[in-house]
Amino acid sequence: MKKLWGGRFTKTAEEWIDSFGASISFDQELVMEDIEGSLAHVQMLGSCGILTKEEESVIKEGLSSLKVKAEKGELPFSVDYEDIHLNLEKLLIDEIGPVGGKLHTARSRNDQVATDMHLYLRHQVEEIIVTIEEFQKTLIDVAEKHVETIVPGYTHLQRAQPISLGHHFMAYFWMLERDKERFTDSLKRINLSPLGAGALAGTTFPIDRHMTAELLGFEGIYENSLDAVSDRDFIAEFLNHSSILMMHLSRFSEEIILWSSQEYRFIELDDTFSTGSSIMPQKKNPDMAELIRGKTGRVYGNAIGLMTLLKGLPLAYNKDMQEDKEGMFDTVITVKGSLKIFNGMIATMKVNSSVMKEAVYQDFSNATELADYLAAKGIPFREAHEIVGKLVLSCIQQGCYLLDLPLETLKDASSLIEEDIYDALKPEEAVRRRNSAGGTGFKQVSSAIEKARALLSLDK
Amino acid sequence: MKKLWGGRFTKTAEEWIDSFGASISFDQELVMEDIEGSLAHVQMLGSCGILTKEEESVIKEGLSSLKVKAEKGELPFSVDYEDIHLNLEKLLIDEIGPVGGKLHTARSRNDQVATDMHLYLRHQVEEIIVTIEEFQKTLIDVAEKHVETIVPGYTHLQRAQPISLGHHFMAYFWMLERDKERFTDSLKRINLSPLGAGALAGTTFPIDRHMTAELLGFEGIYENSLDAVSDRDFIAEFLNHSSILMMHLSRFSEEIILWSSQEYRFIELDDTFSTGSSIMPQKKNPDMAELIRGKTGRVYGNAIGLMTLLKGLPLAYNKDMQEDKEGMFDTVITVKGSLKIFNGMIATMKVNSSVMKEAVYQDFSNATELADYLAAKGIPFREAHEIVGKLVLSCIQQGCYLLDLPLETLKDASSLIEEDIYDALKPEEAVRRRNSAGGTGFKQVSSAIEKARALLSLDK
Amino acid sequence: MKKLWGGRFTKTAEEWIDSFGASISFDQELVMEDIEGSLAHVQMLGSCGILTKEEESVIKEGLSSLKVKAEKGELPFSVDYEDIHLNLEKLLIDEIGPVGGKLHTARSRNDQVATDMHLYLRHQVEEIIVTIEEFQKTLIDVAEKHVETIVPGYTHLQRAQPISLGHHFMAYFWMLERDKERFTDSLKRINLSPLGAGALAGTTFPIDRHMTAELLGFEGIYENSLDAVSDRDFIAEFLNHSSILMMHLSRFSEEIILWSSQEYRFIELDDTFSTGSSIMPQKKNPDMAELIRGKTGRVYGNAIGLMTLLKGLPLAYNKDMQEDKEGMFDTVITVKGSLKIFNGMIATMKVNSSVMKEAVYQDFSNATELADYLAAKGIPFREAHEIVGKLVLSCIQQGCYLLDLPLETLKDASSLIEEDIYDALKPEEAVRRRNSAGGTGFKQVSSAIEKARALLSLDK
Amino acid sequence: MKKLWGGRFTKTAEEWIDSFGASISFDQELVMEDIEGSLAHVQMLGSCGILTKEEESVIKEGLSSLKVKAEKGELPFSVDYEDIHLNLEKLLIDEIGPVGGKLHTARSRNDQVATDMHLYLRHQVEEIIVTIEEFQKTLIDVAEKHVETIVPGYTHLQRAQPISLGHHFMAYFWMLERDKERFTDSLKRINLSPLGAGALAGTTFPIDRHMTAELLGFEGIYENSLDAVSDRDFIAEFLNHSSILMMHLSRFSEEIILWSSQEYRFIELDDTFSTGSSIMPQKKNPDMAELIRGKTGRVYGNAIGLMTLLKGLPLAYNKDMQEDKEGMFDTVITVKGSLKIFNGMIATMKVNSSVMKEAVYQDFSNATELADYLAAKGIPFREAHEIVGKLVLSCIQQGCYLLDLPLETLKDASSLIEEDIYDALKPEEAVRRRNSAGGTGFKQVSSAIEKARALLSLDK
Repeated sequence: MKKLWGGRFTKTAEEWIDSFGASISFDQELVMEDIEGSLAHVQMLGSCGILTKEEESVIKEGLSSLKVKAEKGELPFSVDYEDIHLNLEKLLIDEIGPVGGKLHTARSRNDQVATDMHLYLRHQVEEIIVTIEEFQKTLIDVAEKHVETIVPGYTHLQRAQPISLGHHFMAYFWMLERDKERFTDSLKRINLSPLGAGALAGTTFPIDRHMTAELLGFEGIYENSLDAVSDRDFIAEFLNHSSILMMHLSRFSEEIILWSSQEYRFIELDDTFSTGSSIMPQKKNPDMAELIRGKTGRVYGNAIGLMTLLKGLPLAYNKDMQEDKEGMFDTVITVKGSLKIFNGMIATMKVNSSVMKEAVYQDFSNATELADYLAAKGIPFREAHEIVGKLVLSCIQQGCYLLDLPLETLKDASSLIEEDIYDALKPEEAVRRRNSAGGTGFKQVSSAIEKARALLSLDK
Repeated sequence: MKKLWGGRFTKTAEEWIDSFGASISFDQELVMEDIEGSLAHVQMLGSCGILTKEEESVIKEGLSSLKVKAEKGELPFSVDYEDIHLNLEKLLIDEIGPVGGKLHTARSRNDQVATDMHLYLRHQVEEIIVTIEEFQKTLIDVAEKHVETIVPGYTHLQRAQPISLGHHFMAYFWMLERDKERFTDSLKRINLSPLGAGALAGTTFPIDRHMTAELLGFEGIYENSLDAVSDRDFIAEFLNHSSILMMHLSRFSEEIILWSSQEYRFIELDDTFSTGSSIMPQKKNPDMAELIRGKTGRVYGNAIGLMTLLKGLPLAYNKDMQEDKEGMFDTVITVKGSLKIFNGMIATMKVNSSVMKEAVYQDFSNATELADYLAAKGIPFREAHEIVGKLVLSCIQQGCYLLDLPLETLKDASSLIEEDIYDALKPEEAVRRRNSAGGTGFKQVSSAIEKARALLSLDK
Repeated sequence: MKKLWGGRFTKTAEEWIDSFGASISFDQELVMEDIEGSLAHVQMLGSCGILTKEEESVIKEGLSSLKVKAEKGELPFSVDYEDIHLNLEKLLIDEIGPVGGKLHTARSRNDQVATDMHLYLRHQVEEIIVTIEEFQKTLIDVAEKHVETIVPGYTHLQRAQPISLGHHFMAYFWMLERDKERFTDSLKRINLSPLGAGALAGTTFPIDRHMTAELLGFEGIYENSLDAVSDRDFIAEFLNHSSILMMHLSRFSEEIILWSSQEYRFIELDDTFSTGSSIMPQKKNPDMAELIRGKTGRVYGNAIGLMTLLKGLPLAYNKDMQEDKEGMFDTVITVKGSLKIFNGMIATMKVNSSVMKEAVYQDFSNATELADYLAAKGIPFREAHEIVGKLVLSCIQQGCYLLDLPLETLKDASSLIEEDIYDALKPEEAVRRRNSAGGTGFKQVSSAIEKARALLSLDK
Repeated sequence: MKKLWGGRFTKTAEEWIDSFGASISFDQELVMEDIEGSLAHVQMLGSCGILTKEEESVIKEGLSSLKVKAEKGELPFSVDYEDIHLNLEKLLIDEIGPVGGKLHTARSRNDQVATDMHLYLRHQVEEIIVTIEEFQKTLIDVAEKHVETIVPGYTHLQRAQPISLGHHFMAYFWMLERDKERFTDSLKRINLSPLGAGALAGTTFPIDRHMTAELLGFEGIYENSLDAVSDRDFIAEFLNHSSILMMHLSRFSEEIILWSSQEYRFIELDDTFSTGSSIMPQKKNPDMAELIRGKTGRVYGNAIGLMTLLKGLPLAYNKDMQEDKEGMFDTVITVKGSLKIFNGMIATMKVNSSVMKEAVYQDFSNATELADYLAAKGIPFREAHEIVGKLVLSCIQQGCYLLDLPLETLKDASSLIEEDIYDALKPEEAVRRRNSAGGTGFKQVSSAIEKARALLSLDK
């Protein structure tokens, strides 16, 4: 396309240089959005008298024809035309002749590419919100089955207090709810039209930006043309919100991996979501959970990549911004895929309730109950703690648990202890009685599940 | 505090180990929030009959007394008591005796520290929103003065089209508006009460979480106790939004630095915001703009730091989370400081309108006007471009600009050109005529400024 | 491949799940390395009597045949066989029958994939080192042409002191020299063989790891089998070093962009490395420099992505690690491409020496010379500064420069000033006289260029 | 210090602005390095005749006196003098009069601050290398005690093959060895002198840069003055290497946390490195390991912070670079502290060998041994796998392990199985027999420990 320089490079080298600068290899992902934007633009040009009705109609037909071919994957793109915009312009002119060149009146590639990305991301974020909601429904279903399944609750990865397994799953429901909230909030900023901002300064043509915005389903327009073409906040915000979502999934993955281990055996993953070994049929590697935990890295990386790119860029458009797309596409695929996989993994896993229950009975996480029991009978907290501490120690020396101690041993420790202590010490009771708002008590968990269901219906 | 291990370490070494694990050196920043949270908690305990009215009253007095001392900076904190919560508990007991120990009934440090941070961040984000708004007001004022000041508009750091300087400043207004929107959106998630979630599972005491939430001005409570103590999304989101804000300031800084250079001379910073040289009185280093551009790095770093910490953490509380505070404090200071400095820097800088105007007259950024002129007379776009390209080239060879060409030369290029071309080529006219919505036309800029003013009043 | 779960998903969905977990779409990049590693492995198995000579020979032939097909791009890979290792095993068995299965004796995919990546990265890092060196040669050539070309030297983007343009270019030579040093240092850690570490624990077969290491050109073996399969430091280090390299290129890009602007006009990029406008023939967007500046973000992102992935992973192999490849491949392509493009861009750009010289004459960066002149005549530094400051101020008021002042004016300021001051104030002299080691004095620059040339020859 | 601007700010506001720009609050950390650099500089000035011997001597005495005060922490620093350099200059002049001003001859703050940081980092990196080595010695000692202690080896956090515990610890030895190697490599680039580079261009004074370099213990000088003052690679490289080191510690932390849990009970941390609960005496939170895992985030953050700062900065010094210090200081403290804590934690932890052994006996990780046994008897690999798979399945159904099966059952599966199978299936034998180089066989582990010991002595 250009002159060889210094005779030092062959034709091949020069093509390679063109390739380095071209974006068609990845921005063809935006082909449908680009056509959609052009259709709105040409309708507006016709409507405002900038093109004749005849021209409008011919160009629209040409675009529609390209759209059909695009859907079939039949459009031939070439690095010679650099990006998706110039490729489509070329193909349009091939289709309908020179009048195709008029499509670009009162438009610049700067506002055009921004429009494409707003359309793309609006669609994807809406899909991600639906995908989150599908996963939330699975969580509610699974939680509901396990309101009264008891499992150790951990702090510092040490067993701390027995909790309802349903309660545990619902913790992730609320994390995802916040993710959804954040994505929903971001739609306000995604769903704005930059179209008509021109290269950076607007245009002298009597265009109607509100009309194209409406045709494209945007809620409003960018109020400043410089901002319209140089803003990439909406992508940065998407990557940031996605990072937090992936962080949530990485935490959940960590637990799935732990719970699938021989040391825990709390759950068993379905074969579809784990890989086995011909030689060790019992072994199931939680591959999908590990992979999703690992994919957290690439999304963080995409986020910091874009933020680095934008740091210190003067207004308005700079070529650096061509690099804004691949990380966005990759994040969309990663987030949607991870959510769907996780959904299936949770929906199909087998919970080993008896192993969980056994775990809860074989530790001292009911020690707090005993202290609370004594405190309720008027013994100061610190003193109650000391009494319990001594009892636990003596259990450890004897190799037993608190529930195994005879009443007289308990009474020796404090004469206030009565027969009813055995009820209080039962993990099930310990869980049931934590009935403060948002607590793990069964009633609380059931009511939280109801709230969650209501929330999803309201959302729709 | 603990036994020496293996005789290998001296007492000093052991103190150092305790220090490594302690957080009092930095979490004392939360002293007022911790007292505030405790006051609400004890009032609720009294109100729910968990403490007697007498106990409630004594503890409240003790806390109030600590508060007065804290305001004077007179509370003696010690690494022996690890963190702000244990330090205050110790000081309270010193103040009012053992009854102080009852304050911790039905509460854990896990929900307590989360409450402190929610209170802290709510306050800081509200302040940041106000600080952004103050800066926006300055931008509006400065933009208003410069609606008709003309400056080159750039793409690729190449002069592209002349624009209104006011329009340029208003681009930053809208970026900041989005920052404010994001911070405001995040308040929904910050302004929730984790208090009463206990260590992770809720409590068996008949507490009233809604009451403490209301007393502390929270809009609601966390619906899940596990989530309440392990959620740090609200901090991550704050750091992410702050990163985007700093990115905006880094872009503005870059422009301030460019515009202050000898090559541009578009603006002159006030002495307060630049540093000079005794030997070169004309030289003004734009130190503050550079520093803020540099500080972008630390905020990005704080964000990725927290996201790294949270990656893969199982529920619920883990000690890793102690590391969530310093980056948050540092970001608050950086963001508030940078906004205030930038505000002052813009408010006091001198604009060299004549230099800007001269720049606009000494380039070919009006070439587009000529092409538009021809296109409007019916010449196809590509042909118009060719005509203009040739004229520009001949100007360059003669060392002049388009406005310098005599009418006959222009007419030689195209007979459709008339005397009125000289008006069209004037940069002022070029700017005035880009009157599409959100464009740089003077009317558009003035109307955008009006909208912006209205927006700020509505916000209040 | 696996049973449908719960009837909730169609066959298509299940294939999609398999795809999510498979790596063949990207790890086929390692096809040649995988075959190379297998060839060495089978030779060793034969040599150690673990396979018969016959088996060794048949497998080797099969692998050679696959290699030929791979070079032609004719190997059909399928997601059914998950990754490059299983795909090649399948293809080998198709080629030579069941004996192909014996290739995997005493080997695991864990040590196999690590071996592939060590081979890949060794090759790529060696290529990158050569590519850096080619760019360094261009820098030396260009610097040599411009030893005596004078250009403003900047601090704070303010003109500070005139310098040699050759000196400026050589600053980048030394940055690249450090990059090369770092990559070279890293080869010690890349060029080690993990082969034979098995899944994680070594093997019971009497293998000879030193033999395979030697056959593959490795300098040594990993001393610990757990470390061998779980270490990804060598990739992290590569990404970190690449980040610093890209940071250097981003700084150089920034300068190329500034220098190409209308405000500077210091250089003119060749058409191959810039894009123009049909309407403004004089305008050249420095696209390549902008793009490389932008690509810095993706490399930083790849680095933080891998570091996030590895954070907190227990030993030994975890599926998360499958995510270690794409960022590495992407970085290799980005770094090599950016270096080559930059090399061409610098080799072909036109330097506008006269514009640079004019710039140097039209500022006060020679004020330091006057102060030094006075100091050399015994005037205390602070006093000298004051005298010069006043003279500069009076120049500014008169609209002239120091060299324009008549001798009497200068003498009025200080009677110690003589006719020879005009020589001292000449920018060329100012540059020439900064002859301290590593300074911008012409002699220093020439001698630095000689050193640099010697360094490159020695390196080879 | 400066004039109020616009009457809009009070004196207090203005001091606050000065504070925002000042660095003395953190760069006073460099006080000893700054004095050390000045002592070398003044000696050189005297030696080169730029100062008189008298001046040299007076300034040296003044500096020595400041040094004594600095060691006692008695130097009064003030924000009025911005940074450590101006503060010390002021204090020197207070000490010895105006001659103190001559210290700054032929030097700029730009080369001065770079020199300080090179001195600081050289010292710290040397200390970190020693601290790593101390930790490595502990690892060797602990590994040596546990060469024959057997523990499950994991992949995917699933038990894969039994290994030697000593082998597991030695994996970390080699990671740390690479860390040490990287830090050692970086010293080449840290240990260079920028002193004498001036503001950016060198100086006209006849200085001797090699002399100051030698006096300060540097191995060489920066060859280019622009590079000398604008290079921050050495800090970036330090932060990157530190990130990898912290990543290693985060992986080790994860394992310490897992192994301390009730599910594993493989180890018990000493009280000094864990926190307990008055009520649950058996509970030990692995606080230090969690904290170090968390601190990984801040070091990653410091690294990306500096890389962000440097992205796109034009040469030479820019004020942004003032932000290079706090992340470096913070990383030094974090890395040194984390290494020391980890060292103590590992040195004092109790290993529950019997629990580990029990774990190894209660799984099927010896299934590979059975397959290898069959393969050695000539059964094709795939077939052997099938046989073993069936046996494992039948064990699971019966609730037993392979070693529990009677010989006839085994013979039913394959008639090739003999009595000696029971030896082969013993985990101890499985470990012992993995005697390939670098494998987990006891001999291999012992020999690796010897190599490691030799390596440390050679290093010293």
